[in-house]
Amino acid sequence: MEIRHYTDVELEDVDRTGFQGVKARYVITEKEGAPHFAMRVFEFEPGGHTSLHQHPEEHEIFILEGEGIAVNEKGEEFKLGPGHTLYIPPHEPHQIKNVSGRLMKFICLIPLMNR
Amino acid sequence: MEIRHYTDVELEDVDRTGFQGVKARYVITEKEGAPHFAMRVFEFEPGGHTSLHQHPEEHEIFILEGEGIAVNEKGEEFKLGPGHTLYIPPHEPHQIKNVSGRLMKFICLIPLMNR
Repeated sequence: MEIRHYTDVELEDVDRTGFQGVKARYVITEKEGAPHFAMRVFEFEPGGHTSLHQHPEEHEIFILEGEGIAVNEKGEEFKLGPGHTLYIPPHEPHQIKNVSGRLMKFICLIPLMNR
Repeated sequence: MEIRHYTDVELEDVDRTGFQGVKARYVITEKEGAPHFAMRVFEFEPGGHTSLHQHPEEHEIFILEGEGIAVNEKGEEFKLGPGHTLYIPPHEPHQIKNVSGRLMKFICLIPLMNR
């Protein structure tokens, strides 16, 4: 077993088109030997957001801190706060925004599709 | 996308041999359409524990609240607290105990192996 504190893992900029103020720690990945899915802990600065984007991988999300909004392809908005869980199916367009004045942190799991 | 608060999901007893004071909420599973892995939120009562057990599925864990211990097959103990992440590889014997006087809560992901 491998144990560490998530803040001991490097916080990296997530530099993707349309993303702003988004950072992540890749806490359990292929490097640790994970065979099926990876755990990341995201940090969104106040006003930070992804684009409305989609991909073949589903997401399973648990909100740790802060207040945000999830947006679907119709532009409908859903509030997110601590303890909310979010399942985003494969290929479903989604956007995540931090609408609070402080950091938003959440856990986001994604399958390792190419293994 | 499907959003809910984890406390809105039923808290169920985990009734397995050698487990005591262990409950879980199955927050994202096959029922929600998850194709590859499931998210569960466990609650261990003070003194609650699993057996030392093993299975083909790996675990990816994030501690939310409380203080616990993870035990490996050599009997070595590792402290767990809020923000700790734990990767348990497939087939590796493991035991989790709550050693605090209050609830221990953690997220535990597991692959859906038979799909």
